[in-house]
Amino acid sequence: MSTPWSKMAQNTPSSVVRDMLQAAQAPGMISLAGGLPAQTSFPLEAIRAAYEKVFMSGSAALQYAETEGYRPLRVKIAERLEAKGLPASPDHMLLTTGSQQSIDLVCRILLDPGDSVLVESPTYLAALQVIQSYQGISHGVACDDHGMLPESLEEQLQLHRPKLVYINPTFSNPTGKVWSRERRQQAVDLCRKYGVLILEDDPYGEIRFNPEQLDAPALAALDAASYEGPSNVIYTSTFSKTVAPGLRTGWILAAPDVVKIAARAKQGADLHSSSIDQRALHALLETFDLDAHIRYISQDYEQRMRTLTELMARKSWEGITWNSPQGGMFLWLTLPEGMLASNLFTYGIQEKVCIVPGDSFYAGTPELNRMRINFTHTDPELLPEAVERMDRAIQRWHASSQSDHVVTM
Amino acid sequence: MSTPWSKMAQNTPSSVVRDMLQAAQAPGMISLAGGLPAQTSFPLEAIRAAYEKVFMSGSAALQYAETEGYRPLRVKIAERLEAKGLPASPDHMLLTTGSQQSIDLVCRILLDPGDSVLVESPTYLAALQVIQSYQGISHGVACDDHGMLPESLEEQLQLHRPKLVYINPTFSNPTGKVWSRERRQQAVDLCRKYGVLILEDDPYGEIRFNPEQLDAPALAALDAASYEGPSNVIYTSTFSKTVAPGLRTGWILAAPDVVKIAARAKQGADLHSSSIDQRALHALLETFDLDAHIRYISQDYEQRMRTLTELMARKSWEGITWNSPQGGMFLWLTLPEGMLASNLFTYGIQEKVCIVPGDSFYAGTPELNRMRINFTHTDPELLPEAVERMDRAIQRWHASSQSDHVVTM
Repeated sequence: MSTPWSKMAQNTPSSVVRDMLQAAQAPGMISLAGGLPAQTSFPLEAIRAAYEKVFMSGSAALQYAETEGYRPLRVKIAERLEAKGLPASPDHMLLTTGSQQSIDLVCRILLDPGDSVLVESPTYLAALQVIQSYQGISHGVACDDHGMLPESLEEQLQLHRPKLVYINPTFSNPTGKVWSRERRQQAVDLCRKYGVLILEDDPYGEIRFNPEQLDAPALAALDAASYEGPSNVIYTSTFSKTVAPGLRTGWILAAPDVVKIAARAKQGADLHSSSIDQRALHALLETFDLDAHIRYISQDYEQRMRTLTELMARKSWEGITWNSPQGGMFLWLTLPEGMLASNLFTYGIQEKVCIVPGDSFYAGTPELNRMRINFTHTDPELLPEAVERMDRAIQRWHASSQSDHVVTM
Repeated sequence: MSTPWSKMAQNTPSSVVRDMLQAAQAPGMISLAGGLPAQTSFPLEAIRAAYEKVFMSGSAALQYAETEGYRPLRVKIAERLEAKGLPASPDHMLLTTGSQQSIDLVCRILLDPGDSVLVESPTYLAALQVIQSYQGISHGVACDDHGMLPESLEEQLQLHRPKLVYINPTFSNPTGKVWSRERRQQAVDLCRKYGVLILEDDPYGEIRFNPEQLDAPALAALDAASYEGPSNVIYTSTFSKTVAPGLRTGWILAAPDVVKIAARAKQGADLHSSSIDQRALHALLETFDLDAHIRYISQDYEQRMRTLTELMARKSWEGITWNSPQGGMFLWLTLPEGMLASNLFTYGIQEKVCIVPGDSFYAGTPELNRMRINFTHTDPELLPEAVERMDRAIQRWHASSQSDHVVTM
C-alpha cells in the first residue's frame, strides 16, 4: 500500500539545496555553501558555565514549562531590543525553537491554501519552502541594492492582496544586502496602507562590520515610531548567530493577538521549546558580555569576508562581480550572462569546492547567473585553496563553453 | 484592522484544560490536574554531569545539526527498544521536541482537511486538538478496560476510511488503562486489513508498577512480528517521563518513507531540535542506569497512587469508583450518573483542589461524569489534605443537588 501523504507533505519537497549541502559533506570538499556560523566563535566556556548555573538552581529547569518560554529570558531579550531602539515587552514575545520555527508558526496561523505572500527577489530559501508547505503562493517583489522597490511592492499589494510580506532586510540571506532607512519606512507605510502584516526576519542584524555607519533600524521599530497601537510587524530573531545554533532559541515579538494565537499553535506543535536551553541563555546573559562577543564575531567575519574577496579579486575573473557586505554571513556573486550558476556548481563539485547557485532563492523566474557564498564557516586558512578551486571550476566552464561553440559552429 | 487568521489557527482554540490548569496555579491550590511527572524524581546530578561531558567534548554540540537528530542517541534508543522486543534501527528514527511534536508531524504529513482519524474513547486531549488544527475529524472508537472493541474499530474503519488510528494503549492518558495483548493484535491486524496506519503514542509504557505481570507488547512489535516489510505502526515515545520533560526529546520510529517525509516536515518546522539536549541524553545513557531509575520512579508512583486511592476509599463516597492503574500517571474516576464532573470541578476549585473533568477527552459525545486524577506530581504529604478537599467538594455538590430538588419540587 502506498501512504496517502497530505497535501502539506506533498508540498514539502526535499530541498535542492539540502541535497547540495550533502554533496558539500564529501571528503576533501571545501564548502562555501550552507549558512553556518564559525564554530570557533562559540563561547563554549561561558555556555558551559551557564548550564552549570542552571543545574545548581535545582530541578525546576527540568519540568514542563510554559509555552511562551522562560519569562526571565524574555525580559532579557526585551531589554536588549529596547536598548537597540525597538520597543519590546516580554508579554508580546514567544520563544521558539529558532527563527525557522518562528517562520513556520507565523505561516501556520496566517496562511490558507492559495493565500499570497510577498517576498524579496531573491529571498531566504527555507521561507519559500515553508510558505509552499502551507500551500501559500510566494510572489517576488523587485528589489535593488536598497531593498524592495516601493512601486513594485505597492503594485503587488494591490494585485495579490497578500496575507503577509516576508522580508530579511538586514544582511539578507542570500544577498548580504541591507535595506536603506527610506525603503524600510516605505515598506512599513505601504503595508499599513493595505493592512498587510510584515514578517521581519532578522537573524543577522547584529552582525555589523561598521555599526556606527549603518542606519538600518528594524522595520518593527519604524512601525512603532510611526503608528499607534499594536504592531503591524512580526519581528523574529534568534541566538543562533550571536551565541550558537545548537541552543535552538529564537523569538517572535509581535502584537499581543499574534503572540497569543502563535502560542496556541506552538502548544499543539511541541508544547514548548527546551526550557533548559532557555534558562542557560538567561544565565549566560546575566554575566557574559554578549555585545562584546558580537563585536568580536563581527570583526572575525569581516576579516574572513575581506580575505575571501581579496583573493577573488586577484583572479580578475572576467565579468564576475560581487558585493562587499557590511555584515551578516553571505555575499552574492553575479556571473556573466550565459554562465549558468548550476553549471559552475557542478564544475565546483568536480574541483571539490561547493558554492550554492542562486536559482532556488527566487519565488518566480530565477536569475540563473547568481551564486551565494558563505564566508563565515570555512577555516580561513582554506580560503586561498577554495579560491584556487573556484578558479579552476571557472576555467572548466570556459573550456566547455568554447567546445560548445566549436560544436555549434 | 482584524487579523485574517488561517483556518488552522481558527481550529486551534485555547484548550479548556489549559485554562483549568491556569486555575490550578492559584495560591494554595492543590492540583491533581496536569500531567506532570514528579519533579523530585528527576536525576538532576546525573543530568548535570551529562551536560558537563557534552561541553568537555568541544563546540561541535553547539553547531547546526542534522534534522533527524544526533545519531549516537538514535543508536542508544534503538538498542533500548530492541531490548524490549521492538525491532528498531537508528535509520528509521526521527528525534523530535517531545511526543507532542511527534503527533503534530504525523498529522502534518498525513491529514488533509476533512480526513478522519480514529481515536480511543476517551483519548489524549492534546492529540484531539492537533487533529482538529489540521482540520481532521476525530471519531471515537468504543473501548472497554482492555482496549478498543474490535467490532467497533472495524465498523469505523469501514465507515470513515480514516488516514490514521491514534492510540495510547499503555497506561493511557486519561484513563491509566492498558490494552490486552489480544486487543493489540486485533488492532494491528484490522489496520493492516484496511491499509490504515496506526500512531502508537507510548510516553508512559515504561512506568510499570509490576513489570513481570504485564503482557503488553508495543503494537509496533506485534506488527513487526506478524507482517513482512515496512511497519504499519508509527511508534512515538519520549524521555519526558523517564528522565525529564525539560529536555524536550522524543522520537518517532516508523517505516523509512514515513521517517523521510516527517524529517522533511520537521526541517521546515524548526530545522532540528536542541542538539545539546540530545547529546546530553546520549551522555546520560552512557553511564546512568536508566532502567534502575525507571524502576525507582515506578515504585514511587505506585506508592503515590496507593496512598491516594486508600485515602479516597476511606471516604466511602457513594457511587464514586475508580481504577487502580498498573502504571503511568493517571487514574480515572467515575461519578454517579447525574453528578456532572464540570460541577465537581467548580466546587473543587472553591475548596482549592483541582481535578480535570473528563469531558474534553472525548472525540464525540462525552461522558459527563468522569474525571482524570494525576497522582505523580503533587507532594505526597499533601494528598490527605487533597482528599479532604475533594470530600468537601463532593459534600457541596450533594448540598446543591438537594437544594435543586427543593427548588424543582
